[in-house]
Amino acid sequence: MGFFESYLPAFVIRLTMPDISAKAIKVPSSAIRRLSPYSDRAEREGIKVYHLNIGSPDIDSPETVKQAVRNFDFKHLEYSNSAGIYELREAMLEKYYKRLGMDLTIDDILITTAGSEALAFTVETVCNPGDEIIVIEPFYTNYYSIACQYGVDVIAVPTVIENDFRLPGIDAFEAVVTPRTKAMLICNPANPAGTLYSKEDILQMGDFCKRHDLFLISDEVYREFCYTEDPYYSVMNIPGLEENTILVDSVSKRYNLCGARIGAIATKNKAVIDAITKFAQARLCPPVLGQIATIGALEAPVSYFESVRREYIKRRDFAISTLNSIPGVYSPMTYGAFYTIASLPVEDAEDFAKWMLTDFRINGETVMITPAASFYRTEGVGANQVRIAYVLEVPELKKAFHILEEGLKAYNSR
Amino acid sequence: MGFFESYLPAFVIRLTMPDISAKAIKVPSSAIRRLSPYSDRAEREGIKVYHLNIGSPDIDSPETVKQAVRNFDFKHLEYSNSAGIYELREAMLEKYYKRLGMDLTIDDILITTAGSEALAFTVETVCNPGDEIIVIEPFYTNYYSIACQYGVDVIAVPTVIENDFRLPGIDAFEAVVTPRTKAMLICNPANPAGTLYSKEDILQMGDFCKRHDLFLISDEVYREFCYTEDPYYSVMNIPGLEENTILVDSVSKRYNLCGARIGAIATKNKAVIDAITKFAQARLCPPVLGQIATIGALEAPVSYFESVRREYIKRRDFAISTLNSIPGVYSPMTYGAFYTIASLPVEDAEDFAKWMLTDFRINGETVMITPAASFYRTEGVGANQVRIAYVLEVPELKKAFHILEEGLKAYNSR
Repeated sequence: MGFFESYLPAFVIRLTMPDISAKAIKVPSSAIRRLSPYSDRAEREGIKVYHLNIGSPDIDSPETVKQAVRNFDFKHLEYSNSAGIYELREAMLEKYYKRLGMDLTIDDILITTAGSEALAFTVETVCNPGDEIIVIEPFYTNYYSIACQYGVDVIAVPTVIENDFRLPGIDAFEAVVTPRTKAMLICNPANPAGTLYSKEDILQMGDFCKRHDLFLISDEVYREFCYTEDPYYSVMNIPGLEENTILVDSVSKRYNLCGARIGAIATKNKAVIDAITKFAQARLCPPVLGQIATIGALEAPVSYFESVRREYIKRRDFAISTLNSIPGVYSPMTYGAFYTIASLPVEDAEDFAKWMLTDFRINGETVMITPAASFYRTEGVGANQVRIAYVLEVPELKKAFHILEEGLKAYNSR
Repeated sequence: MGFFESYLPAFVIRLTMPDISAKAIKVPSSAIRRLSPYSDRAEREGIKVYHLNIGSPDIDSPETVKQAVRNFDFKHLEYSNSAGIYELREAMLEKYYKRLGMDLTIDDILITTAGSEALAFTVETVCNPGDEIIVIEPFYTNYYSIACQYGVDVIAVPTVIENDFRLPGIDAFEAVVTPRTKAMLICNPANPAGTLYSKEDILQMGDFCKRHDLFLISDEVYREFCYTEDPYYSVMNIPGLEENTILVDSVSKRYNLCGARIGAIATKNKAVIDAITKFAQARLCPPVLGQIATIGALEAPVSYFESVRREYIKRRDFAISTLNSIPGVYSPMTYGAFYTIASLPVEDAEDFAKWMLTDFRINGETVMITPAASFYRTEGVGANQVRIAYVLEVPELKKAFHILEEGLKAYNSR
C-alpha cells in the first residue's frame, strides 16, 4: 500500500478489486484462435471460409470409434483409474509402442486429457519455476503458454525459412544451455514447419541431452503423418537414454478425434511417472467417453492409416507446389504433420489474415490462415509468414489457394 | 556441485539422471486412492468390497444422457470452442444459474474439464506463487494438491468434530489473513464434513473477503444435495461482491457423470474470465463427448433431482444414526453433500482402513473407508477419523456398517 492509500478511509478500499496473477497477464491469447471472431462474423454473413488455420482435418474417424461409443452401455459414468482405463493403456502399448520398438510396460504409460495435459504434467514434473526448456523455433505456440503457467522459460534455437528450417549443428544447442536448463522439447514431425527429424538428428539430440543431464521430451502426436520412406525413429528408441526421455502422445490427429481429448505420457523414468501419477490423481481421471471412443479407434485396421497417409502426401504435394507458384510466396518442402510455413509478400501477415476475413471475398468465399509470428520467440521473425494447414481435399485446397493468390494481389494494390 | 563431484571425470556425470521438480516431490498422493491396491487385491480374491470411500454414487444418470450420446452423429470429433459448446453454456445459464438468481450472461461462463480444471484455472488466475488461500478445515484434499502445483499455500481455518464442525466466528478468519492472502475457497455444501453454509454465513464471508480485497471462490459441485428446507444461497447471490466471487461448478455429482469430466467456471470479473479464457485456449477445448452427454443431462426433468434428494436424505438419516449407534463412533449430523466424517475408537484410522481391506471379512465381504487425516492441515488432527460416503442404498449401507462395527471390535481385540 502506498503512502496515500494508507490514509484513505476504509470505504474507498472496499471499492477496489483483487488483482489477478502475473502469469494470467503474461500468458498470450491463442494466435490460432485470435482471428476467430472475424471468421465467425464472416460465416454468420453467409461467407464460406476455407479453414487453413487449424489442424482439424476433414478425414473421417475409423468406423470402430462410432461403434464403440454407440455400444457403450452405462447407467452412470464413473471415474476411471487416474492413469486411464487399463484396456486402453494395454492397447496403446501393444498396438503402438511395442510395434515402434519402444521397451515399455503398462506401468510406464499414463492416459491424459489429450496432448495438452500430457505436456502440462511433464513440464510441471521436470521444471521448477525459473527453469528453462529448449525448443526448436518455429514451435507450437502452446509450448510457451503451458510453460508460462508453471513459471518456466522457453529458450528457442532458431531454424529459418531461408534455410528451409534445417536443423543447425549441435553447437547452436550448446550455445543456449544455462545452469537453469532442465529439458529439451521437440515436436516430431513438427507443427508448424512440417520438419521430420532423422535418426541421426534424434541421436545427436539424445547425446546432447545426456551430456547436459537434460530431459528430452518428444511430442509425437503427428507420428502417423510422415512422408518419407525411412522408418520413424523416436527418442524412446535411443539406447541408454531411458531415464531422460519422455513421450507426449495424443490420438487427436491420428484418428481425427481432436474433441475426444485423449493423450498419453510414456517414460521409463520411475520418479517422473510416479510424480505424474500424483498430479493425475489430483484431477481424478481422463474423460471416460473419450477413452471409450479411443478403445474403438485402436481397433481400426492398419489400412486406415495407409489411406490417410496417401491422401496427405497428395495434399502436401499440391499445397507446396501451388503455394510456390504464387508470386512472392515461398514455402519449403515438408516431410511430416500437415502444416507448412509460407512467407508472403506482405509486411504484416496478421493484418493480411484479418483483412482476408473482413474485406476480401471471391464469389462469397474467403480463406483463413494463421499468422506465424507467435510460433517464434526471436523478436521480429515471422511477421510476414503464415502457417497453412493442408487439411482439406485437393479440389478445396485449389479453390482456397486461388482466393489466397487473388487476395494477395488485391491487398498489395489497395 | 560439491567439492568431490567437481573432480569427477565426465563419464561419471553422464551416468546421473536429471532431477524432478520440488513440487513433484511435495504434492501428496491421493488419500482417497492410496488404499486402492489393497481393495483391488481383495476384489481380485473374490471379496465383495463396500465402497464407502469415494463419492461415486450408484444412482442412474438421467435417461436423456444415454439418448444424447447414442444420437450424437459424427464423422470425426472436432474441437469445440475453448469455452465449451455454446448450447451447453446457454443451458447451464438458463437451467441453473438464472434459476438460482445469479446475474450472469453467457460471456461470464466457461466450460471446463470438470471441477478439477475449474479449480486449477481459478487458482492460477488469482494467485502468484507464494500467495495464500484460506480454506475451512477439514477440506477436500485436492485443494491442497492443486494449490501445490502453482506454488500456492493453503491456510486452514479449523472446524472440529467435537463442535460438530460449526463455523467459528469471523475473528478466526481475520487471525489467518496475511499480506499474501489472495482468496478464500469454500465448498458449499462441503466435502468432507457435509456442512451447509447459511445465507448469514455466506454474507459474513463475503463481507470478510470484501474488507480484505480477497477473491471468494465457491466450489458448489454438491449444490443439488442440500437437506434443509432453506433456499440455497450462493456467493454469487451476494450483492456488491461481483468482482470478487468465482463459482466452481461440475456436473459430476449432480447427474452422476463423474467420468464425463465436465464442469464450469462463472464470474462477473472480466479480468478473471479473460485470463481463464487464455488458459483454456492453451488446452484447446473440454471433452466433446462429455459435453454432448451433459447437454442431454440438462434436459432431465426437475423430478430427477427431487427423487435423488429424497433418496439421499434417507441414506443420510440411516448413515448418521447407525454410525452413532456403534460403540466409540461419533459422526455429527450433516446437511448437504453425501459424506460424513466419523471419529472411530482407533488411534490410526489409516492403519484400520488398510487392515479392513487386508485382514477382515464377514462372509467374504469387507468395507473400504477413507482415512480423514489428509483433509486437515493442522498437525495431528483427524488421525482417528474417516470419511464415509453414503452413496449406497440403505440395505447395502446396513450390511456395510455391520461389517464396520464388527471390524472395529476385532481390530481392537487383536
